[in-house]
Amino acid sequence: MIPAKPPSPRTRLRRLNDKAAYDVGTIRAILDAQPLAHIGHLVDGAPTVTPTLQWREGDRVYWHGSAASRMVRASAGQAVCLTVTCLDGLVLARSGLEHSVNFRSVMVFGQAELVTEAAAKARHLEVMIDQMFPARWPQLRPMTAQEVKATAVLSLPISEASAKIGAGMPTDPPEDRDWPVWAGVIGMRQVLETPESDGPPLGPAPQVRRFQP
Amino acid sequence: MIPAKPPSPRTRLRRLNDKAAYDVGTIRAILDAQPLAHIGHLVDGAPTVTPTLQWREGDRVYWHGSAASRMVRASAGQAVCLTVTCLDGLVLARSGLEHSVNFRSVMVFGQAELVTEAAAKARHLEVMIDQMFPARWPQLRPMTAQEVKATAVLSLPISEASAKIGAGMPTDPPEDRDWPVWAGVIGMRQVLETPESDGPPLGPAPQVRRFQP
Repeated sequence: MIPAKPPSPRTRLRRLNDKAAYDVGTIRAILDAQPLAHIGHLVDGAPTVTPTLQWREGDRVYWHGSAASRMVRASAGQAVCLTVTCLDGLVLARSGLEHSVNFRSVMVFGQAELVTEAAAKARHLEVMIDQMFPARWPQLRPMTAQEVKATAVLSLPISEASAKIGAGMPTDPPEDRDWPVWAGVIGMRQVLETPESDGPPLGPAPQVRRFQP
Repeated sequence: MIPAKPPSPRTRLRRLNDKAAYDVGTIRAILDAQPLAHIGHLVDGAPTVTPTLQWREGDRVYWHGSAASRMVRASAGQAVCLTVTCLDGLVLARSGLEHSVNFRSVMVFGQAELVTEAAAKARHLEVMIDQMFPARWPQLRPMTAQEVKATAVLSLPISEASAKIGAGMPTDPPEDRDWPVWAGVIGMRQVLETPESDGPPLGPAPQVRRFQP
């Protein structure tokens, strides 16, 4: 049941459409590999891009913020675009034009839905922590009703979505391939540094998931 | 001549405003450390977030794209928001609420200006490559007039801009600090992998700049 075609006109990639992907598995894998998202929303009619973390539950993508934040107030019930980008490498070609980056990105469009019920909100926040730090949630100081109230959880269905992927070596045209300059790829990835505990460490640092190539 | 106050109402940080910074030096340093940007623009009235690379020349930020791209057509002369985010670490607190990330981000608002003059466009594209790969440009197959024509260069003044920075250890309230769970920071950074040449390597791989903490 994987749609191989764009789910709407605005998710159809016009440029470089050999890089386009619309299948659910590809879109999910990119969302799962990079929690950092950029939310596009309007503030007084002007486009605004707010960085935040996203997580996925089945066929929906979630993010959160202070219930008092401008991003939350401007997004709830409104048209938004959530974009996630993994930068995978620098592509050095023989001409400036063919220089590029290797990347995986996803854009999800839709109306952001606010989770209003407190128990549901608390459950989603638990999932957020649990996906990133397995087994950590039960060890934390339990969440209070006031904390749940102060936190807004927003979501979008992953239905109107597209992925774009750039991978591999430079694609110089044949007439440029013998130009005498170093060409190739310099890969990039995010790495985790050695954990630093706040005060004396209480056992080993938690395992971190989701920041994976 | 560094403004210590927000240059406009929409750049004033409402939430967590101890994290706000408006000084030019801070904003420039973040733009220079992370070429990946997310451009917020409107497509048929709906906010859309497109990932691309940015570079800075003095007090302006630049990005480029195919002259035929939807992002370029939707941004030129229009209100946009350019956001750059460096993810620096995961902050593990004693409560779910205090979990956070360390980050540096910049938002630049304004009307995107298209560089129309061909020689100016070519110069900006040279600067883009030169900032990332010093001394590479003169070694490349020279850019053609047709390539310059097919490429659009857009820019914004870095005047209506703000930075937001989260750094350091978790800020649990005193009553939570003795909760028996590991707390601290797990730093993150982008690293470059070993260069892979496309065919036999012609000398050493170029030096890469701008992906620095």
